[in-house]
Amino acid sequence: MLKVGLLGAGRIGHVHAKAISSHPDSKLVAVADVVKEAAAKLAAQYNVEARSNDAIIGDASIDAVLIATSTNTHSDLIEAATKAGKAVLCEKPVDLSLARAQACRKVAAAAGRPVMIGFNRRFDPNFAALKSAADRGEIGKSELLSITSFDPAPPPVSYVQVSGGLFRDMMIHDFDMACWIMGATPESVTAIGTSIVDPSIGKAGDVDTAVVTLRYADGRIAVIKNSRRAAYGYDQRIELLGSEGLLSADNELENTVSKATAIGVVSAKPQYFFLQRYMRAYAAEWAAFVDAVTSARSVPVTLDDGVNALAIAEAATRSAKSGATINLATVVG
Amino acid sequence: MLKVGLLGAGRIGHVHAKAISSHPDSKLVAVADVVKEAAAKLAAQYNVEARSNDAIIGDASIDAVLIATSTNTHSDLIEAATKAGKAVLCEKPVDLSLARAQACRKVAAAAGRPVMIGFNRRFDPNFAALKSAADRGEIGKSELLSITSFDPAPPPVSYVQVSGGLFRDMMIHDFDMACWIMGATPESVTAIGTSIVDPSIGKAGDVDTAVVTLRYADGRIAVIKNSRRAAYGYDQRIELLGSEGLLSADNELENTVSKATAIGVVSAKPQYFFLQRYMRAYAAEWAAFVDAVTSARSVPVTLDDGVNALAIAEAATRSAKSGATINLATVVG
Amino acid sequence: MLKVGLLGAGRIGHVHAKAISSHPDSKLVAVADVVKEAAAKLAAQYNVEARSNDAIIGDASIDAVLIATSTNTHSDLIEAATKAGKAVLCEKPVDLSLARAQACRKVAAAAGRPVMIGFNRRFDPNFAALKSAADRGEIGKSELLSITSFDPAPPPVSYVQVSGGLFRDMMIHDFDMACWIMGATPESVTAIGTSIVDPSIGKAGDVDTAVVTLRYADGRIAVIKNSRRAAYGYDQRIELLGSEGLLSADNELENTVSKATAIGVVSAKPQYFFLQRYMRAYAAEWAAFVDAVTSARSVPVTLDDGVNALAIAEAATRSAKSGATINLATVVG
Amino acid sequence: MLKVGLLGAGRIGHVHAKAISSHPDSKLVAVADVVKEAAAKLAAQYNVEARSNDAIIGDASIDAVLIATSTNTHSDLIEAATKAGKAVLCEKPVDLSLARAQACRKVAAAAGRPVMIGFNRRFDPNFAALKSAADRGEIGKSELLSITSFDPAPPPVSYVQVSGGLFRDMMIHDFDMACWIMGATPESVTAIGTSIVDPSIGKAGDVDTAVVTLRYADGRIAVIKNSRRAAYGYDQRIELLGSEGLLSADNELENTVSKATAIGVVSAKPQYFFLQRYMRAYAAEWAAFVDAVTSARSVPVTLDDGVNALAIAEAATRSAKSGATINLATVVG
Repeated sequence: MLKVGLLGAGRIGHVHAKAISSHPDSKLVAVADVVKEAAAKLAAQYNVEARSNDAIIGDASIDAVLIATSTNTHSDLIEAATKAGKAVLCEKPVDLSLARAQACRKVAAAAGRPVMIGFNRRFDPNFAALKSAADRGEIGKSELLSITSFDPAPPPVSYVQVSGGLFRDMMIHDFDMACWIMGATPESVTAIGTSIVDPSIGKAGDVDTAVVTLRYADGRIAVIKNSRRAAYGYDQRIELLGSEGLLSADNELENTVSKATAIGVVSAKPQYFFLQRYMRAYAAEWAAFVDAVTSARSVPVTLDDGVNALAIAEAATRSAKSGATINLATVVG
Repeated sequence: MLKVGLLGAGRIGHVHAKAISSHPDSKLVAVADVVKEAAAKLAAQYNVEARSNDAIIGDASIDAVLIATSTNTHSDLIEAATKAGKAVLCEKPVDLSLARAQACRKVAAAAGRPVMIGFNRRFDPNFAALKSAADRGEIGKSELLSITSFDPAPPPVSYVQVSGGLFRDMMIHDFDMACWIMGATPESVTAIGTSIVDPSIGKAGDVDTAVVTLRYADGRIAVIKNSRRAAYGYDQRIELLGSEGLLSADNELENTVSKATAIGVVSAKPQYFFLQRYMRAYAAEWAAFVDAVTSARSVPVTLDDGVNALAIAEAATRSAKSGATINLATVVG
Repeated sequence: MLKVGLLGAGRIGHVHAKAISSHPDSKLVAVADVVKEAAAKLAAQYNVEARSNDAIIGDASIDAVLIATSTNTHSDLIEAATKAGKAVLCEKPVDLSLARAQACRKVAAAAGRPVMIGFNRRFDPNFAALKSAADRGEIGKSELLSITSFDPAPPPVSYVQVSGGLFRDMMIHDFDMACWIMGATPESVTAIGTSIVDPSIGKAGDVDTAVVTLRYADGRIAVIKNSRRAAYGYDQRIELLGSEGLLSADNELENTVSKATAIGVVSAKPQYFFLQRYMRAYAAEWAAFVDAVTSARSVPVTLDDGVNALAIAEAATRSAKSGATINLATVVG
Repeated sequence: MLKVGLLGAGRIGHVHAKAISSHPDSKLVAVADVVKEAAAKLAAQYNVEARSNDAIIGDASIDAVLIATSTNTHSDLIEAATKAGKAVLCEKPVDLSLARAQACRKVAAAAGRPVMIGFNRRFDPNFAALKSAADRGEIGKSELLSITSFDPAPPPVSYVQVSGGLFRDMMIHDFDMACWIMGATPESVTAIGTSIVDPSIGKAGDVDTAVVTLRYADGRIAVIKNSRRAAYGYDQRIELLGSEGLLSADNELENTVSKATAIGVVSAKPQYFFLQRYMRAYAAEWAAFVDAVTSARSVPVTLDDGVNALAIAEAATRSAKSGATINLATVVG
């Protein structure tokens, strides 16, 4: 039975608390949050203690911590927790600074404890089925990957200002998906970004709509489209063209009902946002972490994966500004 | 080159004129209609002569006639044309009277000329693909056939009064589809009908909504649903359940565009009616007739098929009135 | 907090135990089963006691019982539990004998405690959305209802022999759906059944494939298709034709991935069986029961509903044997 | 009645001959081809004369010519025909040389006769429905356009060598679609190309897989994906994201049949190639030309449109080589 401390009692902390408690082989034992009331309330719901981050990390009886705090604390907490011997599942991104994330990676590597990064989409049953089919060679050799990833509505500008920008905050999920599905890190990155959804996002120095093309050393291409707004809900689709066919993972809809009338056929929209679409993915992500840690096998999404995705985000940010294709090697240093 | 006379210059006559003219191995040579202006106009369009039915049937240089006149003339024209040595393609139904149709069959059989009945749906590319897959055994042994067949809007009561009723006029197409797909004539017929779409249809003694269940000697079942009204267009679907799976033929839509907005996803309706949905079927039907006649092979939809479908319609009419299951043998006599 | 005793620790008992435990306003306190080991194991999983049915029903601190025992015990347990003042949620069917179910209804009515019957499909999000849309008048006035309900594979003959037959065991769900969606009990029932899937089912005196047509007093029609075998999984679809359109509830698929290759486009099958398809429905069903009981409102599926569905099953059984349409009034007595 | 001479009796010439002959307001009067046998055969099929290009262009009784010859002759024939007073419908592209196309445009403009370029996809009923919905504002303000355009199989290298390259030969269609749907010419072009489908295409100096991003002056973005190979058929899809929703035009399938078995649900592939998918588009294209010419209104696809698409192709070719974003103004000169 894996004893788990949860750092962060916000919206995503609630999702993780449920996953930890529902799993037969893990047990939530403590919750921390900078907002003490939030920690207290979530702890009460699950009959566990509310403590500080330090108290949880310092408790030798706790096996693992789940880091769901604000991004600027991730690296520090990963380092502290791994030094204290904990296994770690940390929400994405590792950090907004590539250099800081790279330094964190070194510290964690030295500690030798498993660190998994929360790229939850890898555990979506649809994307997982696409990946499995590709790996089994069902469409031959992969050639061209397309990821469509639109949020239902733009975040407030106050969030945008501290988010690190669309490429580090939002598209980083898609960079990880591309690396995972293609089984490789791209060689170069070409980004086109624009602020067309909400002018205040542009004024804040960010883009809200972007197309990024990744080119791999063997000539394969991935193209990612992001928009901060899709009036019809969360649009999360992947297509992979291979030498023998095309794999497509489509959206999950709110229900399977359609209505045919004189004006056309109306069917349900995609699930509204990530809490609906990826609810099953969060449970599967946690199960994969528990399975890896308790069986001493390597975690399926490593800290390296987190740093890689951040490096691509860095390259995309530079490309969108300069209009030039950026070689990833020049970013990683 | 098959020389063809067209009897009937109404709406469906126009469809056939185009098919005859477009086929590389057939040539329209004359058109007849009781409304002389209609015949003259259609003949002019194709640079052929307008004549009487008798003149066309009596012209030894004409190889085949296509009968697209009103139902009450079909049997007489089939008999006259086959006696005159013509190959015949006649629109459905053979007749509203089963006895008259049976008599016509004897006369035509004696004449020894090919007579094909215009059950156009057999030539729809979708239904033809379903039939082919079933015949190849792709779903194992067939068990349960379901046909959905709804018209977009009810006909005027004046039409209903002379139509022979829903079972002989509309569902006869579906009876033929069931016989064709199941490869057998059913043993018994159970019909439930109602007038719920348009009360004036009920007052005219007919039903506008009906469910008919056919039972085959080997235990297989077919169920047919008809409605005179589908506000969203012509609904023409078939499902066949077999021991190893299900085959489904869905509607053809007006286009492939969908629109996702906050209120849902709107896509196109089915094609509006038979002239849209079955346009390709009419061309394929004519091609099959030309192919059979010019190669001296038997036509793919025989006069027997036309009489069989009429017998089932007769049984359904009786069953809907009595509430009892009707053994088809008691109808055929 | 509703304190709940669970009677029955089989497959469906496990599903209910999870729903009871997960609900914030209910608490599982005891489990019973004729197989003592089964009760003990399930009780241990949820840290509750294993007791006898009598001990649970006799415990004044328990507010409600969920009856998930074998069908032949349902009526007795409903009577005992309601007499003891419990609210009851009982799995379908109420009984295999219509007379026994009618008697049970009287006893329960006298006791005055809420009894809800577990027609779980009403709580499927897809069927619930279809029902809501119909009730809002989105397709005008309903005219023709079609229910397709196929199991993935036939049960063993030993089960068939004690099941009460396809109409009472399997199609009873669809009878309830028809009553619920149409908002009325049908006037007459016409059934065609056959044993074509598995000859041993026929030898046991049952059918494995059936089509039942229900006719309502106002002329509306419902048609239900059942098969004990669909090689592609659990096929659960509903279509409702109305004066202004068609509502369709389609299957839920295993995932949203499709693969296009030279041989066609392959997509996922429907969810395999009811535990997958209706998992969300069981949770919603329990939530509706808790909500009704704790707020003293009437339960959404009554014992009357359970008796009605059984009466239609009785009529269908008679119709399938005689080939005649059965007036429901002659069955209800 | 528009009298039409057809220049070019190859595969696409046959398609046009049928469209010209079938239209009630146009009449095919002569056919030319450098392969005299091809011209003679096609002319015989339609009972018209086979002549030389010069003889057709010099015939004062001919109102219009359809140019379906090899690309390298297009500009010369457009010039000759317009000087001779003919209305012209010319297959795409105008020329492989942007400068030559620009010169041709001047000559044709001086002649003052209508010249329409054969971007047939604008007349596809699906893309036309998407465009109409966008223009009606059904998804608000357009923001991000995505075009997927894959051929079923790569052409022979001998064709690639004279084709002008993927951007001028294949993606030029998509450049025109983007200009048409967005209602504007892009400001800059960023292209990523690779040769991954067929190494011999790479050796011939061309790419076979490419992603091109177009940026418009107002911040809107279009992204186009091309591959020379889609094992499942011709993949022609468009998505347009707007401020209030998403419009999608999906592929047309070979038929509407699906087969559900234990291995999944198999449905039909997209139509195999452009002759199947765009057959209706060619007829609609011709009808639009006839309508414009006979009513003296401007043609819906102008020579300017043809030159614009070619300029974008030129920019994409340069971008794919340099890795830099190309400002279209630097190409147009």
